[in-house]
Amino acid sequence: MKDVTGGVTAPKGFKAGAVECGIKYSGRLDLGMILSDVDAVAAGMFTTNRIKSAPVLVSRDHIRGGKARAIIANSGNANACTGESGREAALATAASTAEIIGCEPEEVLVASTGVIGHELPIEKILNRIPELVDSLSVTGNNQIAGAIMTTDTVPKETAVEIDINGVPVKIGATAKGAGMICPNMATMFCFLTTDAAVEPSSLRKALSTAVHASFNCITVDGDMSPNDTVFVIANGLAENLPIKSGTKEFTLFVEGLTEVCTRMAKALVRDGEGATKFITLRITGAQSVEDARKAGLAIANSPLVKTAFFGADPNWGRIICAAGASGISVDENNIIISLNSFELFKHGSPTNFNETALRSSLGQRDITCDVDLGMGYAEAVIYTSDISYEYIKINAEYTT
Amino acid sequence: MKDVTGGVTAPKGFKAGAVECGIKYSGRLDLGMILSDVDAVAAGMFTTNRIKSAPVLVSRDHIRGGKARAIIANSGNANACTGESGREAALATAASTAEIIGCEPEEVLVASTGVIGHELPIEKILNRIPELVDSLSVTGNNQIAGAIMTTDTVPKETAVEIDINGVPVKIGATAKGAGMICPNMATMFCFLTTDAAVEPSSLRKALSTAVHASFNCITVDGDMSPNDTVFVIANGLAENLPIKSGTKEFTLFVEGLTEVCTRMAKALVRDGEGATKFITLRITGAQSVEDARKAGLAIANSPLVKTAFFGADPNWGRIICAAGASGISVDENNIIISLNSFELFKHGSPTNFNETALRSSLGQRDITCDVDLGMGYAEAVIYTSDISYEYIKINAEYTT
Repeated sequence: MKDVTGGVTAPKGFKAGAVECGIKYSGRLDLGMILSDVDAVAAGMFTTNRIKSAPVLVSRDHIRGGKARAIIANSGNANACTGESGREAALATAASTAEIIGCEPEEVLVASTGVIGHELPIEKILNRIPELVDSLSVTGNNQIAGAIMTTDTVPKETAVEIDINGVPVKIGATAKGAGMICPNMATMFCFLTTDAAVEPSSLRKALSTAVHASFNCITVDGDMSPNDTVFVIANGLAENLPIKSGTKEFTLFVEGLTEVCTRMAKALVRDGEGATKFITLRITGAQSVEDARKAGLAIANSPLVKTAFFGADPNWGRIICAAGASGISVDENNIIISLNSFELFKHGSPTNFNETALRSSLGQRDITCDVDLGMGYAEAVIYTSDISYEYIKINAEYTT
Repeated sequence: MKDVTGGVTAPKGFKAGAVECGIKYSGRLDLGMILSDVDAVAAGMFTTNRIKSAPVLVSRDHIRGGKARAIIANSGNANACTGESGREAALATAASTAEIIGCEPEEVLVASTGVIGHELPIEKILNRIPELVDSLSVTGNNQIAGAIMTTDTVPKETAVEIDINGVPVKIGATAKGAGMICPNMATMFCFLTTDAAVEPSSLRKALSTAVHASFNCITVDGDMSPNDTVFVIANGLAENLPIKSGTKEFTLFVEGLTEVCTRMAKALVRDGEGATKFITLRITGAQSVEDARKAGLAIANSPLVKTAFFGADPNWGRIICAAGASGISVDENNIIISLNSFELFKHGSPTNFNETALRSSLGQRDITCDVDLGMGYAEAVIYTSDISYEYIKINAEYTT
């Protein structure tokens, strides 16, 4: 696997672009598109929130056919909790795009992110779709990456090249998301493109595996949005033999897809609203992976743990407490807690650690926290951020 | 039921007091006691965190006998995750108290609150117990109320008088807690005294009912501590016929106990760390009380909902999202959301509300949020606070 430039337009036969549409923001790109030059297979995964936005419901219908030519996405308005007119707006966006690019409306996937419960200004969007299509280019990857940002501070994109039986295949991605980030996706988009040829059902399976190992392992604030969306479009222009699950080629493709998704997932946490820390939380010694994830998420979502990380405070008491309250079976006499490799608590008692050295190391942006539950052999890794004054400011002062 | 003064010493035959012990804080009371003049029955409830402090484990053993003469409690150190020496410290505290007041060690209940994982300075405590016992008086209620405070900004106490078949009976309480407050108790103490005569098993039942309707309905930050403790001591000096469950008298007693517990529970939320708002969240139309509580707690613990309340922002989208992610079955077409009686979302669409008037009303400290799920007839009320810059400051800058 090697890194390549170009984000979502790194794979052959993809163009991207964006325009200023004035949906909420002014003077910035807020409507973007990714287009495959040729018919392509596609798969998608969506929020598990019972409240789902109109574009999620529409795209879920569209992707059932397993095909897509284009993704059109806006920021500034989530088109969630907007009733029948919201649904009509999402359908109209797809229909208008399909007409201009020349495909079925069902081959257009739509996505919206931003404030909930405000009517989408659909006329503004429909008026700009022709110009958006005109803007598409093989170097437009950074345009779409910028257009989908909300409280994100940096655009997020990546791409890799893998080798499938001697055929170079590329996978590209762009993602957005900073708040309302919790496992099972949260307010995030990740749009993936690949020139690999992949059988439709295998593409769905590959996506599910990659998302479970990446976006389902991150949490910023434990909140989950009605708009979370991951799409992958595979257009086959690399001309490899179509990849089937159960083969060596499938394993290689899943590795590549997982790598790209993991980079995007970590980028979301690193850009978490107000985040000053990036915490890698490794839970080991659990009785099951589910237990390990439960403990990890309870620790990662505890406001007291998050504020301690913000304060560079080695407050392992809050970590053990959060694990104890997570609902899984724990025994403090078995637990070992380490921060940045300093062992702080072992087998029922605090250790004598070098607090000055540890506090200094906790001043860095990247922190590792290891919790060995000492109950079994299962493990999980969760990536999370701290909670800072800036998180409060971002979320108290703006309707996002 | 009528209000009376005197907190935990309002009921006949109770004394209270406190001393400065220098456990963590200096220049303030940090070790307190409540003593019944005569033998008394007692009941207790404790944290459901799997990690339990030494005093919780010791008091849980002691209260199995259903009797208690005294409660001794310190602030500044939780004596949690302190291994065998922590257990010995809790036992020594009970034994020394028992010797001085003249009872069995099992009749002394111990409680500690403060930082986790630091050895309790037991010598300091043992040295001051004689002076603490000397300090006990029938007007010492405010002393113990102050001694148990940690990040609390105000002492919390209350008392009521109820009539049991013509016999006036008093119930008094003091409580502490401001952070790590979540249903199923969290870092809180509530010590209840009553001069009612109550059968031991009926006292346990009454306490469980009262706690479920009060402390289990509040959340500040979703965290739960290893030290949460509620004790009730009933010394019978009111000379009523012993109260038995299943009688009219029992119902009256439970009402009184619930009222006192609810006042204390609300006082904890009102004094939540950094809280600027007191939010009464009423969930109606649920399919079960459990569903109503799940939705309510998901809303109350959502950082995005909490920051919106802090910002006086009528961001009902975050409220419906949190309900949708709570795991219960919801349908946005059935949901009605109101803030301070302004209807904001109804049957799938936003309403046209007077935003200026609503924003102004959200500037007040007390806010009501009504969520009608429209799925059934079950309800729950949850009390919570917002999350502010001050919460971050309190928890990032101090090891608490």
